[in-house]
Amino acid sequence: MSVTAAGGFVAAGGAVGIKPGGAADLAVVATADGRAVPAAGVFTDNLAAAAAVRVSQAHLGATGGRAAAVVLSSGNANAATGRAGQDAVEALCRCVAGEMGTAPEEVLACQTGLIGVPFPIDAVVPRVPAVVAARAAGEAAGVAAASAIMTTDTVRKEAVARATGIGGARCTVGGMAKGAAMLAPNMATMLAVLTTDAAADPATLQRVLAAAVGPSFNAMTVDGCTSTNDTVLLLASGAAGPIPEAVLAGAVGEVCASLSEQMAADAEGATKLVHIRVTGAASDGEAHRAARKVADSLLVKCSLNGEDPYWGRVVSELGSAGVAFDLDRVTVRYGGVAVCARGVAAVHDAVAVAAHMKGRTIELACDLGMGDGNGAVTTTDLGHGYLDENRTTS
Amino acid sequence: MSVTAAGGFVAAGGAVGIKPGGAADLAVVATADGRAVPAAGVFTDNLAAAAAVRVSQAHLGATGGRAAAVVLSSGNANAATGRAGQDAVEALCRCVAGEMGTAPEEVLACQTGLIGVPFPIDAVVPRVPAVVAARAAGEAAGVAAASAIMTTDTVRKEAVARATGIGGARCTVGGMAKGAAMLAPNMATMLAVLTTDAAADPATLQRVLAAAVGPSFNAMTVDGCTSTNDTVLLLASGAAGPIPEAVLAGAVGEVCASLSEQMAADAEGATKLVHIRVTGAASDGEAHRAARKVADSLLVKCSLNGEDPYWGRVVSELGSAGVAFDLDRVTVRYGGVAVCARGVAAVHDAVAVAAHMKGRTIELACDLGMGDGNGAVTTTDLGHGYLDENRTTS
Repeated sequence: MSVTAAGGFVAAGGAVGIKPGGAADLAVVATADGRAVPAAGVFTDNLAAAAAVRVSQAHLGATGGRAAAVVLSSGNANAATGRAGQDAVEALCRCVAGEMGTAPEEVLACQTGLIGVPFPIDAVVPRVPAVVAARAAGEAAGVAAASAIMTTDTVRKEAVARATGIGGARCTVGGMAKGAAMLAPNMATMLAVLTTDAAADPATLQRVLAAAVGPSFNAMTVDGCTSTNDTVLLLASGAAGPIPEAVLAGAVGEVCASLSEQMAADAEGATKLVHIRVTGAASDGEAHRAARKVADSLLVKCSLNGEDPYWGRVVSELGSAGVAFDLDRVTVRYGGVAVCARGVAAVHDAVAVAAHMKGRTIELACDLGMGDGNGAVTTTDLGHGYLDENRTTS
Repeated sequence: MSVTAAGGFVAAGGAVGIKPGGAADLAVVATADGRAVPAAGVFTDNLAAAAAVRVSQAHLGATGGRAAAVVLSSGNANAATGRAGQDAVEALCRCVAGEMGTAPEEVLACQTGLIGVPFPIDAVVPRVPAVVAARAAGEAAGVAAASAIMTTDTVRKEAVARATGIGGARCTVGGMAKGAAMLAPNMATMLAVLTTDAAADPATLQRVLAAAVGPSFNAMTVDGCTSTNDTVLLLASGAAGPIPEAVLAGAVGEVCASLSEQMAADAEGATKLVHIRVTGAASDGEAHRAARKVADSLLVKCSLNGEDPYWGRVVSELGSAGVAFDLDRVTVRYGGVAVCARGVAAVHDAVAVAAHMKGRTIELACDLGMGDGNGAVTTTDLGHGYLDENRTTS
């Protein structure tokens, strides 16, 4: 169970003709009673943001942070599609709202797929009501929704966390997601929808969601590309009553961390899941920036693919990350074994390092020796599969 | 002829045992009479800069911008090698200076190769004098030097430009280079040495060189990595007498442009040479930043390799480049044909675009419609060959 795990939510997934061949390409997550509930969103900061991003932001603004449903479609990003693209999303929202008996502004939208291709709204609209009408509670409905947003994903991404406060108050947070950064060839974007039965106001939800996205989705980079469509949404039904914010934050953070880890693990063409940790930076911000510089390095990614613990490329990236840096203080470890200490090659157990590099998960830790700043980023290697997947869109 | 084209310079290349198998790995460029002449340098801004970079900067500082020779070695970057690495470069400079009868501070150094490997200075020193002693004027000597700095380069990179001022004053500028960004597996870095017979003071040379590096070496990106060893040097013998600064600048610019284009064209694993031009940015700086963001995009590089004119990835990169941007004003052209106009797909001659994409050189032009800022970057596609070259250092 994912988005239907928390009380008060229903879901559905089906085909509306965006993808060829009748594949599932539309999902709906909605409140069981059709009423709008507090909602929050974190969106791409790409200035070429897709129509769905702009419409969802506008709708959350118009309602003061409330939503009754989220409609998600795959197979067309509906980005760089101008005014017609915007109109298409509004039409999609009206269509869902009409079936549910709610206001169009209370429907949020997420889309993923190719950029710059007109969205076939006229063909899609007649088929949407049947999918929405099939919405239901329970595990099967959650699976149907999570399946309908898959594109080149090889597995569904779902997560559930339950938390209990000191006084015994409980809440459930469920979520589903697709993609991994702008990884896939035809279907860009990472999308995630989370639901909870906790009672919380929109401002609290926004705070909790923004805090959870930082160390999870925003700490994952596959190719360094910021999609036009990236969206993370959180809706709260209130069915389980109020819960301390810290408890809710813990559960939301857990779900976001699980979903982002699942995305990186499913990154196409990748053979390694890599955790890059930077400690000893001048600040947490600098640690994060340095970790991301290493993670996004083509040369480091190639070395990881080749299982080569070539730390020279790592220190070179750290040195050009734009953070406080003194090579003489740098330590680099693979799997806990220091291969570079005080900026020069360290005598080490090469057999242990080689064994670690052969594993599916690689731990790369860098200590800058400059301060107390810590940061971590999850990434992947760069393999031939990535190139094959991304060479052409056809 | 390259570094020996300008009067007053000699060169040599040979093997001193850094590379295995007796391959040429040491080059020297020196003044014919052994006297120090005005010199200037532009160096990597990587804070993990190699020993040779630090030593060359210190020597230029100590002499007030004068040098009698440049010693270049390939096969070991001598970066992240600590105090011992620094001592090794100083020893190399002393060795060259001793053979030439000049001061060690009047010798500059450039090195390229693997990072983090101790430099075998004790084995190298005894073999340096013979190479230095073989220095000579003329084309063969220039070729020997340019060959000795090749690593995974498939061709030598040399260029010569001649310029004449209004009053008839003439000057020659010659240069040699190796590498292309941090492209190669074992041998990182781009190095370039330019010589001229113009008479110019160090400050003028520094101004001219810095201005030339901007639109050439700094406008080329293969993998976005800033090497620990990148160095461009310019020495002026004065043999041809004074020349207006603008005339010298033109010739230096021409040589830098030619060498950088040769590097990009020889980038390993690349099948395309790509000129990315951004116009209509809010400023030249923003245009350059946007062009570089597109050039360094893994997804754009993959599309270029696949000969796919997928402009959606281009606008997505432009939108996340951190520059003033309004999707509704954006035009994207491949080979002069607009595939995106006003931020949406443009009706275009798909056959003409497909033919352009199949060529060795691709012209990708983006107009942001925001102002008068222009910028250009030369890059390559990302192919399987790059991965194969860079997976392991062994």
